[in-house]
Amino acid sequence: MKGKKTDLAGADCAIARSLNVIGDWWSLLIVREAFRGCERFGEFQKSLGIAKNILATRLRKLVDEGIFREDVAPSARSRYVLTEKGERLHVVLVALWQWGEENCTDQGELPVAMVDAVSGKPLARLELLSQDGQIVGPRGFGPVVRT
Amino acid sequence: MKGKKTDLAGADCAIARSLNVIGDWWSLLIVREAFRGCERFGEFQKSLGIAKNILATRLRKLVDEGIFREDVAPSARSRYVLTEKGERLHVVLVALWQWGEENCTDQGELPVAMVDAVSGKPLARLELLSQDGQIVGPRGFGPVVRT
Repeated sequence: MKGKKTDLAGADCAIARSLNVIGDWWSLLIVREAFRGCERFGEFQKSLGIAKNILATRLRKLVDEGIFREDVAPSARSRYVLTEKGERLHVVLVALWQWGEENCTDQGELPVAMVDAVSGKPLARLELLSQDGQIVGPRGFGPVVRT
Repeated sequence: MKGKKTDLAGADCAIARSLNVIGDWWSLLIVREAFRGCERFGEFQKSLGIAKNILATRLRKLVDEGIFREDVAPSARSRYVLTEKGERLHVVLVALWQWGEENCTDQGELPVAMVDAVSGKPLARLELLSQDGQIVGPRGFGPVVRT
């Protein structure tokens, strides 16, 4: 989309704000593991094969940003549980999954499919839609200043 | 989703593969700028306020990964143009935009909206859908081994 350019360098861009919170490899993979059932520090560590200090730093930031809630139990290890804000990252994760599946793998190479739990069939492809339900392509959208 | 766990640590996970290609802050912002019309090294640099060496490294990787095509013109500066693979990141960018708008800003704080170019109205919210069009929530999907 041409024209009507807006300053997205800093705080006005929701993409930049998102990346500021979850914009590194490990943070999103930690969130991914939480969707798969990980809750304890050791579970994340084992599952991801990540260094303890890196995991500790990332989990702390994710708690501070409200992605995880840390449940501290006396005489037990903390559980890290996705908040609603964290759970709403499911669309971002599936968008990354579908892009990777379509663009970073050979057809049929991945032995794993991302399915919905009810039907067991692969999720529908995410599509950008206008408010009246028309598919919006890569060049069919852009940021404008609200009036 | 419980059960049927699969090994997503490495190559079998399309999310990990995607993040390996575009999984840092700057790379996605460079792609964002390309959607907004940037093509020349200097345009990206000015728009993002990014150090030249960081921009050069990221652009090289994005070209190597097939996200950008580098058009080298004799006696002119190269143009960096999104490939189809790069353009298909539009869904990822909008997923990040919508998550950030909903979760990292106060209501109505952002002066900018992400709209479709035809109607000028904000894009519809991205939703995970099953193949028969049912909305799939954060806990309603997961990876399974293809049979």
